[in-house]
Amino acid sequence: MAVVDAKNPIITFLSDFGVKDNYVGIVKGVIAQSNPRAKVIDISHEVSPFDIAMGKYLLETSYERFPEGTIHLAVIDPGVGTKRRAIMVETGKYFFIGPDNGLFSFLRPRQIRRAFSLTKSMHFLKEISATFHARDIFAPTAAYLSTGGSLEGMATRIKGINGLADGHTNRNRGKVVGELIYIDHFGNLVTSIRNAGGPLKGIVHMDGFRIGPVRETFGSVPVWRPVCYINSFGYLEIAVREGSAAEYFGVKELSRPKILIAPGKGGR
Amino acid sequence: MAVVDAKNPIITFLSDFGVKDNYVGIVKGVIAQSNPRAKVIDISHEVSPFDIAMGKYLLETSYERFPEGTIHLAVIDPGVGTKRRAIMVETGKYFFIGPDNGLFSFLRPRQIRRAFSLTKSMHFLKEISATFHARDIFAPTAAYLSTGGSLEGMATRIKGINGLADGHTNRNRGKVVGELIYIDHFGNLVTSIRNAGGPLKGIVHMDGFRIGPVRETFGSVPVWRPVCYINSFGYLEIAVREGSAAEYFGVKELSRPKILIAPGKGGR
Amino acid sequence: MAVVDAKNPIITFLSDFGVKDNYVGIVKGVIAQSNPRAKVIDISHEVSPFDIAMGKYLLETSYERFPEGTIHLAVIDPGVGTKRRAIMVETGKYFFIGPDNGLFSFLRPRQIRRAFSLTKSMHFLKEISATFHARDIFAPTAAYLSTGGSLEGMATRIKGINGLADGHTNRNRGKVVGELIYIDHFGNLVTSIRNAGGPLKGIVHMDGFRIGPVRETFGSVPVWRPVCYINSFGYLEIAVREGSAAEYFGVKELSRPKILIAPGKGGR
Repeated sequence: MAVVDAKNPIITFLSDFGVKDNYVGIVKGVIAQSNPRAKVIDISHEVSPFDIAMGKYLLETSYERFPEGTIHLAVIDPGVGTKRRAIMVETGKYFFIGPDNGLFSFLRPRQIRRAFSLTKSMHFLKEISATFHARDIFAPTAAYLSTGGSLEGMATRIKGINGLADGHTNRNRGKVVGELIYIDHFGNLVTSIRNAGGPLKGIVHMDGFRIGPVRETFGSVPVWRPVCYINSFGYLEIAVREGSAAEYFGVKELSRPKILIAPGKGGR
Repeated sequence: MAVVDAKNPIITFLSDFGVKDNYVGIVKGVIAQSNPRAKVIDISHEVSPFDIAMGKYLLETSYERFPEGTIHLAVIDPGVGTKRRAIMVETGKYFFIGPDNGLFSFLRPRQIRRAFSLTKSMHFLKEISATFHARDIFAPTAAYLSTGGSLEGMATRIKGINGLADGHTNRNRGKVVGELIYIDHFGNLVTSIRNAGGPLKGIVHMDGFRIGPVRETFGSVPVWRPVCYINSFGYLEIAVREGSAAEYFGVKELSRPKILIAPGKGGR
Repeated sequence: MAVVDAKNPIITFLSDFGVKDNYVGIVKGVIAQSNPRAKVIDISHEVSPFDIAMGKYLLETSYERFPEGTIHLAVIDPGVGTKRRAIMVETGKYFFIGPDNGLFSFLRPRQIRRAFSLTKSMHFLKEISATFHARDIFAPTAAYLSTGGSLEGMATRIKGINGLADGHTNRNRGKVVGELIYIDHFGNLVTSIRNAGGPLKGIVHMDGFRIGPVRETFGSVPVWRPVCYINSFGYLEIAVREGSAAEYFGVKELSRPKILIAPGKGGR
């Protein structure tokens, strides 16, 4: 079971709240009211509004970089105020709190030790709004867990959590086909293709356009030239050295080009 | 009187400094120099430059979500370097530090226990610049308070603080008329109309255009449709489910449409 | 030698990572894994991508505002994955960790007590990626220093660090010529001209256009009028009171106008 470090409890916080409004600060205030010792570390609040897949990618590639016992609070919640479940999921090392909309679907069933549906609890704020469950339900629950509290007997055990349809990858006769799943701050293009079963080899194409072979890093090409490599999270990424691949190739958030790796030096 | 939690002192920080520059970090550094135990929680640094009314709205709807004894540092300060007063205001639970330009005018006179004008003090930095009082005056004062220090005898008692003319609401013959006061990160339109004396009822109009009845939450309408509800701070808000009401209605920060709630199902 | 405050260790963090991605949060997670007591204070993560000079300006004007023993982690690192050195530089009061690309070149040789090239160490993460040294090398090293650890014998002593060609200032026959080096969040234009050898006097010109005399602060001119003054870091700055000088003068990040201060009331 995951165990909180009671001396230095850590709660991470991921959302689509942005940093202009006071929503993030209020969540931290509510946590401090229950447990002033808890340290909150922001993962990102610039997830595109309602973009569950983006939130899932950012959390999946972050959560293991935190100490055991860390509580991961994640709120991308287009269904707030509807009947979607609010959940807490526990693995052998970590806790996850948020809406049950696929945000945590990177967790494999065998990783999940316990899962709860957060029903009316003595730990919620007294008044539950219809639109700000991060403040009224999720933050108080995270703060309670950060004091070492257990949900056993205080919430409803559930058997599984919801999934999310997203970036698929197919392997066939030496070819790997995937999708663009994320554009980062530098304009790097992250694909759904992962390093699995040995290092990726071959020539990368995007919507039929030949980019080049999989290399080790930026430094393998001159400045302002495109380069493909496995990023630090294990995903195939297309970048431009000291530049923006999104600008270079004219790729925007909503365009979802197909990515292909084919053997040899071919391509048009 | 408000009492600081000496073991876990909390200072919130609200400004129009943005996060590109180093101003916010420097203020935190100056606080750490005086009291390394103080925890600083950001409310927002993306208040529109010099927009005191926006700062006031964000602080008004946040401050009670923090533990008793929290010190609220708020610096939206177009008059820095002029003769505007620097003040500290104390309620029964909280401290407020910043310029006396209306930023704290949501506090009712009866809430204010003590107020001081911050005059030259041993706690300020040795050199006071003309343009960065957050660093030179406000942060050192907040840090000093966070150690349990008192301003009594070290600053000048004042009787009241300045107000701010902003979003008014009129009620007349079953109609309520207000203004748009804020557009949040999601494009939700916050109005000056509050839930007072029983739940709001009726049909909401914006600049004469019928939006619809006051509902409970987003979930009451289909995706991409407009909806009116009381937001989690008690203000009437106009939103588009899983979309942006600001984009849907073409409302920008500087347009200040009139909001009207009228009885029945009328409207043009 | 600089000494860390073991009870309240502070690490500042400056980067060009932005706040949309999870890179900043991951670095904080890695630090928390090694030293959960370390407090990380963000200076900025909105340095323009790969802009070492901007990072240098922000760090130079911040670092002395933090407690003695603070560890300054700064990662603007276009050469990540190439042969550029990763370094730790120690002054009498502070530690600096980052790439050796000029980012720390505001430090005078006589300020530097010790400098190390970070070579393969037991403190790095087990797997070193080619693209995310902030996570794999710099953060673990900062966390190790924050526990009071020393690099002596664990890294290679070096004699000096690399410089950076940037904003120069010339003084000649009563004239001072400099450059624009930074545009802040408010649209204030920061120049390379510093207050040295007595207060700056004369009339400021930008690309030959007369702006006006050096004044004390914004308050010296009416609202929406340009004004020149020495900013809170000691640099000559051109602003518009309660407005944006960048917009007023049409100056963008890549235009680098010449700044001139000439005696008297002349100028065209």
